[in-house]
This record gives sequence, structure tokens and C-alpha cells, in this order.
Amino acid sequence: MNNPAVLEQLISALRCLPGVGPKSSTRMAYHLLQRDREGAQKLAASLQQALDKLAHCDYCNNFSEHSACSLCQDSQRDKSILCVVEMPTDLMMLENTRSYQGQYFVLMGKLSPMDGIGPKDIHLDTLLKRAQDPAIHEVIVATNFTSEGEATAHYIGQMLKSRGIQVSRIARGLPMGGEIEYVDSGTLSTALLERKAVT
Amino acid sequence: MNNPAVLEQLISALRCLPGVGPKSSTRMAYHLLQRDREGAQKLAASLQQALDKLAHCDYCNNFSEHSACSLCQDSQRDKSILCVVEMPTDLMMLENTRSYQGQYFVLMGKLSPMDGIGPKDIHLDTLLKRAQDPAIHEVIVATNFTSEGEATAHYIGQMLKSRGIQVSRIARGLPMGGEIEYVDSGTLSTALLERKAVT
Repeated sequence: MNNPAVLEQLISALRCLPGVGPKSSTRMAYHLLQRDREGAQKLAASLQQALDKLAHCDYCNNFSEHSACSLCQDSQRDKSILCVVEMPTDLMMLENTRSYQGQYFVLMGKLSPMDGIGPKDIHLDTLLKRAQDPAIHEVIVATNFTSEGEATAHYIGQMLKSRGIQVSRIARGLPMGGEIEYVDSGTLSTALLERKAVT
Repeated sequence: MNNPAVLEQLISALRCLPGVGPKSSTRMAYHLLQRDREGAQKLAASLQQALDKLAHCDYCNNFSEHSACSLCQDSQRDKSILCVVEMPTDLMMLENTRSYQGQYFVLMGKLSPMDGIGPKDIHLDTLLKRAQDPAIHEVIVATNFTSEGEATAHYIGQMLKSRGIQVSRIARGLPMGGEIEYVDSGTLSTALLERKAVT
């Protein structure tokens, strides 16, 4: 290897990014140093700033610069429903629908024994405390319909129901514009099973 | 959007990485802040260090912490041949073959009018000066056999030949273990055209 040590350090540091292996970290380092030093400077600074300033909201566990995030401080929102999502992106997708006005809890992950992520890592103790707030009347579990998301939903459902808390799960079925010809059989059989009476 | 401003800044800063769009920069930011703060800290520090310390070797134009890199300072190497490559990775691949003992010149790119990269951006003026060193007897152009690499090779070839400098290009042909059945027709026709007499 003929790379200077500082360059090798940068290349290896870039591998902490998800989905970045030795080839792309090398390509990224060259690109930053050769074609976008300004961008690299900004990246170094904003990484440091995020590490220094960002913490988690005490209520919803989402990233926040303050102990309570703006959404949890919003007095206009319904305090009686709590929606549990895996990641902040999911929260934003739900917000974009403008059809939910309640509270959130962001797990920041999902149960994944293969990656060593257990109940503690997704803050289920904090969720339990939050869900036991007498103001909360219902918890909606909106984790993904992947195997890990389903396992997480099942675990949360059992945990909350055993404490007498009302829990629901978002619905499964054909997506908007979905065609039966192209939908997978799992979705189709669920859509049949969970059919709704026409009124 | 409900993301805190520092988080949004980090997400947008990550987009300076090649091949990283809005979705993956968001995923990267969450991953760093949630699962790998130590890696993020290391990345911020090594980016800053690389920006502060790395410059280019005066002779080969490769990244170096000093004005002459270790390879160019090596008195054991042949001073009469100069091999021109696109990127430091190419230099390393050639070094790994252990079949080249001469000097290098790293363009840090290739001619690419579409991306606004012209002769100045790949340091052809520096290359010309280096190639005119009386110690250099031959310049081997080892840019890639892509259309941009070929155009770069052609440009360099013309530039150096017009100054009376001997220039060669690395050979094209079937790769080791290559099977005629699976090789593309361009490679095959070149392999036919550039056939070598059996001795």
C-alpha cells in the first residue's frame, strides 16, 4: 500500500457508514479530497455539531436538540393516542399523510436478534413507561410489515396488553392503485381475511 | 419536516459523498447517531485531519503528506519510465503486480467534458513538465479502456508525441482465464487485430 497514513485513516473511518465497503470508501475519500473539499469540510463540521448537540426527546425518543421536541410540545395535538414507529423517517411519512394528530414513540430500530438488537436497544422500557401515562388511551403499533417489524409489533403488543393497555396494529391490505395480478400472495390472503363489510 | 436543524444539516452534508442521495444520506445520519457515535466521531476527526494534512506529491501528483511521496523518493526505482494512471487505486493495482519498477503520474481523474473536467483539471500541464524531464525515456499511458479513459490516452499521446517524447499504451486483449465465448466483441476484435507472432 502506498497511501499516506492520514488517507488510510479516512478510508477506514468512512467504512462506518452503512453499506460502504472498502471499494466505495476509497472512492469516497478520493472524491472528497480531490473534487469536493468544501463538501468534506461541511461534512466534518456538521457531523461534529450533530454529535455535540443532538439528543433524544424525553417523550417520543426522536432526535431532538431539546429535552422535549417541537411535536411533543405542541398543545394542539391529541394526547390520548400514541403511535409507535421504527424510525424518524416513518414518523415523517405518517405526518405527511396529515391524517394522524396524536403522539409518537420512535423505537430507533427494531428487534433483530441476528444483529444483537434486543428489547433494551429499542427502548421498550421507556415506551412502557410512556404508554402507562393515564392520558394515553390507545397505542397504535406502526412498525413495518417485514419479519423483524412484525416480531417487534408482536412483542410490543404482548407487553402492553398484559398491562391492560389497549393496543392496535395498522391495517394490512392492497396498496392504493394495487392490482391483484401483481400483488404478492401474502398480501392478497391478508386482504381477503381482513375484508370489510360493504355498508 | 420534524427533524431538528442540526440533523437536517448533517443529512444534507452527507450528500456530498458520491452515489449518496436523499434516502441513503438520511439512513446514514440515523445510523451514525444511533448505532455508531464512535465511528462518527472518528470520521469527523479523520476527515478534518486529511483535509489539513494531505497535499499532492510534486512529482507524481498522488496524495501525500510531504512534497515528495515515499515512492518518488525511492532511489531503487527506475527513473527512466513514467506510467500515467487515472487514480491512486490504479497505481496500487499496478504496484500489486510487482512487474513495474518505474515512476508514476496520477491524473486524479480523466478527461470528461460532460462533467466539465478538461485538461487543466487532470493536471496535464504538470504531466507535460514531468515528462520533459531528460531522465524520462518513455511514458506508458495506463488509463482505463473506457471511452473517457481512451480519450484521455489519445489526448496525452498527441500532446507528448508532438514534443518528441516516446509514448506507449498498455495492451488490450482477452483477460487471463478469459473465454472467447463470454468476451465482448470489441475486446475480441482488438485481440485479433493486435495478435502476436508465436515464437
